[in-house]
Amino acid sequence: MCRRHKSGPYGYTQAKALVYSKYGEPSDVLSLHTHSISPSLPSSAVLLRTLASPINPADINQIQGVYPAKPPFTSLLGTSAPSAVGGNEGCFEVVSVGSHIKSVSKGDWVIMKNTSFGTWRTHTLAGEKDILKIDSKEGLTPLQVGTVSVNPCTAYRMLQDFEEMREGDWFIQNGANSGVGRAAIQLGRQWGLKSINIIRDRPDAVATEAMKNELLELGATKVATESELMDQGFKEQVKEWTSGGRELVKVGLNCVGGKPTSALIKCLSPSGHLITYGGMSKQPLALPTSALIFKDIKFSGFWVSRWSDAHPDDKKKTVEEVLKMTRKGTFKDIPVQELRWDWGTEESTLKEAVQGTLGGFRAGKSVFIYGDT
Amino acid sequence: MCRRHKSGPYGYTQAKALVYSKYGEPSDVLSLHTHSISPSLPSSAVLLRTLASPINPADINQIQGVYPAKPPFTSLLGTSAPSAVGGNEGCFEVVSVGSHIKSVSKGDWVIMKNTSFGTWRTHTLAGEKDILKIDSKEGLTPLQVGTVSVNPCTAYRMLQDFEEMREGDWFIQNGANSGVGRAAIQLGRQWGLKSINIIRDRPDAVATEAMKNELLELGATKVATESELMDQGFKEQVKEWTSGGRELVKVGLNCVGGKPTSALIKCLSPSGHLITYGGMSKQPLALPTSALIFKDIKFSGFWVSRWSDAHPDDKKKTVEEVLKMTRKGTFKDIPVQELRWDWGTEESTLKEAVQGTLGGFRAGKSVFIYGDT
Repeated sequence: MCRRHKSGPYGYTQAKALVYSKYGEPSDVLSLHTHSISPSLPSSAVLLRTLASPINPADINQIQGVYPAKPPFTSLLGTSAPSAVGGNEGCFEVVSVGSHIKSVSKGDWVIMKNTSFGTWRTHTLAGEKDILKIDSKEGLTPLQVGTVSVNPCTAYRMLQDFEEMREGDWFIQNGANSGVGRAAIQLGRQWGLKSINIIRDRPDAVATEAMKNELLELGATKVATESELMDQGFKEQVKEWTSGGRELVKVGLNCVGGKPTSALIKCLSPSGHLITYGGMSKQPLALPTSALIFKDIKFSGFWVSRWSDAHPDDKKKTVEEVLKMTRKGTFKDIPVQELRWDWGTEESTLKEAVQGTLGGFRAGKSVFIYGDT
Repeated sequence: MCRRHKSGPYGYTQAKALVYSKYGEPSDVLSLHTHSISPSLPSSAVLLRTLASPINPADINQIQGVYPAKPPFTSLLGTSAPSAVGGNEGCFEVVSVGSHIKSVSKGDWVIMKNTSFGTWRTHTLAGEKDILKIDSKEGLTPLQVGTVSVNPCTAYRMLQDFEEMREGDWFIQNGANSGVGRAAIQLGRQWGLKSINIIRDRPDAVATEAMKNELLELGATKVATESELMDQGFKEQVKEWTSGGRELVKVGLNCVGGKPTSALIKCLSPSGHLITYGGMSKQPLALPTSALIFKDIKFSGFWVSRWSDAHPDDKKKTVEEVLKMTRKGTFKDIPVQELRWDWGTEESTLKEAVQGTLGGFRAGKSVFIYGDT
């Protein structure tokens, strides 16, 4: 099982991909498919080797068939039934380029321009239109580049595109220790924004304190637990923090839903804006009519896939700006669970890694790091 | 009781007003207060005689103390306890003007610039800053001018200020036979917009048919009952009406809340916008997270008081434009219940008229028309 991937005849690249041919639980429907890529590239293609690709919650929903973005099942990889490759985000290295390719060359790092390309794979062919080149990989790791498109871009655009946020303005968010939450805290600090950060209650006070301190060190202005948020007095607490309400809580970032989000809405200033990017509680938002009419609270949603498909140029700019901060050390990686994917890694190990993201790995997100592939 | 109002000595104007000194049910807290206005006007004041002033639902909520706009209780009218005058909308005639007044003169018609002035009164003094002059009263009735500020302005701004509506675009609304609903239908028709109009189910098919026809004659494109809206197939029906969804339902106007509004939201096109201006069902809006994130539906509220206080110039323009349509016959009065207010009208009659608005008078809104005052 430990043979080198380039052992195929005539310089064929031996590639592997986690594919699915029908929707269902990842452990039921994923399989590891091996295929060959010819060394004679089409003139307009690039051959990529994957360096890192994360497992995001949306990737799982996509395999379950409950996500609106559904990659088509195709026969391109030679699977017995038409299939799609899992994953939507990743960092790739250019291995070789077709004769017509001008924009990238061997050794460059790229990310995918759009979602649904399929990134849980060791190698792939791609067109120039599919990829965004990272201007300089200097001082960056594959992990940093491979996780920049979804969470940091989501936080960035939600803080920039809905309300005019000025230095000293506040935002409030739940799920504050998530990838998006940590990105929002750090971007906010860079831009002079103050943040109120809600985390779920931990099993004990020590764990809660530790998480609070972790986020404060990251740049959070205030951190509170969900049970503190749900307390009657929390609105008064927010008023005190915001100089009696003179400083505005203009934006709320929501990935929860249900009652905790109703409590969060009450902390927004008049004419504030709640932006929803997730619904972890599976509960709908209940909007009191008076919040809409008399308090002029606005409600929008943000879906990074729609945004990046509609604004590829903005995506490139946003990614480069976050990576610039990363290089300077002002934007830190989220804690991740690295899952090494070598040539010899068993199918069952890879499938367990994906399925396990659903239940466990609370410490952070899981990322495939490709080694000897 | 039938003496003339100018019977006071030295030319004093005898005025009456429906006042309240504490919050509660109108029948409990309203009283008819008589007071005198001196003929020697302050130099910067105008003396107004009321011609028409409606009873809007918000006026009742204001007296109940459950409305966010609360006029201050003052001693200006000489009531035994500090008081406020009921009503927020009306058409007034200028009786005389102070020596410094240039913008209006005797015989002009004016409306109030802001809400909370108190319009259920036979006469009042006002400052120049309080009033908006109607450029030409030619061809208009006091009823038309006295009911233009709230419902037609609400419909106008909701269709204009939230999404860019182009000729051929659709909107959907509930409460379609309300004052706002009828205004939206007529403005929509003027602007080339198509409308889907939801009405509550009538007691029998004949009454339902009659209401549908009334709204179709007014310019509605489609009319459906709430039970038709709640039917599973209604979304398909909307798709058929809108050429398979190629024509967009960009805006929803909502004054209901609860489940019927959830059903209405489903009829909006992707990136549509629901604007809430009322909550007759007293139920909150339940927003599925997926509608926000994946369908990009936006939710806002509209409060005509906030809008008109913030944009007095726009208010004047909007009012004049609607009155121009009224003069041309392209904007029709809503059905109203006229309540005559003469000098001799009993307090009990006036109070019953206000209280009655809460339960009955489904045929239309109630408007005080001032006669022999």
